Amino acid sequence: MLETELLEVGKKIEHLLQSDPFPDRIQPESLRRAVLDYPLRGGKRLRPALTLWCCELLSGSPEPAAFAAAAVEVWHNWTLVHDDLIDRDPVRRGQPTEQFKLRDDFSGPDAPRYAENFALLCGDLQQGWANHLLLRSPELGVSPELTLLLARKLQTLAGADLISGEAIDTALPLRDPDQVDPDQVRHMFRLKTGALLRFAAEAGALIGCGSPDDPRVTRLGDFAELAGIAFQLRDDYLGLYGDFSRFGKPIGGDLREGKITLLLLEALRRSNPDARKQIRSLLKRDAYSPEDLNRARNLFHACGATAALETEENHLWTRAREILNSFPDSPPRQHLLSLITLLSHRTL
Amino acid sequence: MLETELLEVGKKIEHLLQSDPFPDRIQPESLRRAVLDYPLRGGKRLRPALTLWCCELLSGSPEPAAFAAAAVEVWHNWTLVHDDLIDRDPVRRGQPTEQFKLRDDFSGPDAPRYAENFALLCGDLQQGWANHLLLRSPELGVSPELTLLLARKLQTLAGADLISGEAIDTALPLRDPDQVDPDQVRHMFRLKTGALLRFAAEAGALIGCGSPDDPRVTRLGDFAELAGIAFQLRDDYLGLYGDFSRFGKPIGGDLREGKITLLLLEALRRSNPDARKQIRSLLKRDAYSPEDLNRARNLFHACGATAALETEENHLWTRAREILNSFPDSPPRQHLLSLITLLSHRTL
Repeated sequence: MLETELLEVGKKIEHLLQSDPFPDRIQPESLRRAVLDYPLRGGKRLRPALTLWCCELLSGSPEPAAFAAAAVEVWHNWTLVHDDLIDRDPVRRGQPTEQFKLRDDFSGPDAPRYAENFALLCGDLQQGWANHLLLRSPELGVSPELTLLLARKLQTLAGADLISGEAIDTALPLRDPDQVDPDQVRHMFRLKTGALLRFAAEAGALIGCGSPDDPRVTRLGDFAELAGIAFQLRDDYLGLYGDFSRFGKPIGGDLREGKITLLLLEALRRSNPDARKQIRSLLKRDAYSPEDLNRARNLFHACGATAALETEENHLWTRAREILNSFPDSPPRQHLLSLITLLSHRTL
Repeated sequence: MLETELLEVGKKIEHLLQSDPFPDRIQPESLRRAVLDYPLRGGKRLRPALTLWCCELLSGSPEPAAFAAAAVEVWHNWTLVHDDLIDRDPVRRGQPTEQFKLRDDFSGPDAPRYAENFALLCGDLQQGWANHLLLRSPELGVSPELTLLLARKLQTLAGADLISGEAIDTALPLRDPDQVDPDQVRHMFRLKTGALLRFAAEAGALIGCGSPDDPRVTRLGDFAELAGIAFQLRDDYLGLYGDFSRFGKPIGGDLREGKITLLLLEALRRSNPDARKQIRSLLKRDAYSPEDLNRARNLFHACGATAALETEENHLWTRAREILNSFPDSPPRQHLLSLITLLSHRTL
């Protein structure tokens, strides 16, 4: 069962993070606790699972990739801490975001400001911790040369590319939707979400096969990147068509924020001037009645945008599945295929 | 001449940074420019000089430490970018701080907020860039094993320790000066300033001698840390006794901010209740007349705090010099000794 397997991955990663000495150096105590907070809050552990299973797929064992998997998880978490600062989000995984949680450690009118500063430093420390974890890989038999290659890849894919994607996303609300090419959003998805997933898969694959020139490494990287972009397309879709009671964010939130989603851009691009005007009139309102939401759904549907993005999403999942099917059958391949099934059917 | 040597170091580092491909991956263009900005603004390049000269001291050549030296400089700069965000400083090296400079790339009322977000991401990227530079060291003949050791050290000394020091410093203004042990400030200096200088020296020494067990590595690390702490003590001193026209910040700025300096803590600890009351009355005023400043100087002097810290500072410089003198004479030893002379005599 995939769920059992993911729980196993979670337990392994948590054990590894809790026994790693790096956070013990951190002072003061409130900052040390903050550094451990997000990584130990749980989450689905999809990224470390990718690393472990891609390693197992090529070598029969996930074990040598354990530090790489933990590094990917901590890296993901520092980007969340800084992303929450940028978005001023109050909630992460059902608990206060780091900059809100840290307020408990300060008093006085400046407590929010101090908490934000500590959250900034918390993410900085987690970036260092992620690197330190990966650099421990030789303890599990990974060669120094390969560890260096992985560490450089972490900086380029998960550093330069991911943060570039975050920056493009951050600056998107400043632009007029009519001036944004939908391909720029696809490009942003590839950087912001795809790059770390590519690293997660390629790191596991590299450790599994031991050779940077093995073509299976890039193929597994492609699989992970495709899945990541499909995941983001589904996010856009569920933002308007999801089940309110199950989807984490209120339906219509993207419309209210005037968020430049791929769905919105495709709808504007495919609609006639009258429909385009109606769509624009539905953006950035204070409140949305069920009729408003239905009108939006109908407009996005009528112009073909919804169907086009569903087709695009399905095509991405299919390509990801095809890559996996090109590998001989094995338990890790089954896990990875089940993961695709789970993610492509999610309704929340 | 030391100045010529430092200019040479600066030129070498700038060339290396400008030819490194890492920033080319960064998007959008405004963020790529921001990542290069601080590292190319100049500065004294003391940290990369330490790395290069410690390498030359043990091996006769600074060359194999070039990437490590560049990494130290970029690491220093990301901590400045995030430190300027925390302190909301408007000026760095005579130009707008990154979060002010980036405002030019945005328009509208939210420009300052977007600029801050980009400055946050700029520092994140520079941390990755610094790591990536160091990880290129094998191109200069450094062994993969040693490069891994250096990369782990960078995370612990320049990551965990330095950022812990920054956090302690950040939270200091929240505390009552009577409740702060002066040794906590010394501890903060060791972490915030000493740790990166220790890394800079030890990285060069390790590359120079090639062996992690060579006792000269720790000795050169001690030298750099001692110099760093002495430098901070001098900063405190110049904040009250420096020459207004030459010192970067207005004299008395520390008093106005009520900054918890070692000088203040030692003065409070050594004064009788009446003098203590007078000192406290001189903190956090809106304006300081020349008489106010003289009164503060006299109070700090009369209780022995000023002399005690001067003695402490001189003792640190002497110990740093003694370590260098235990090495055979050579041009890099001369440069390092001249550096101590320069820093210990600075009046601005």
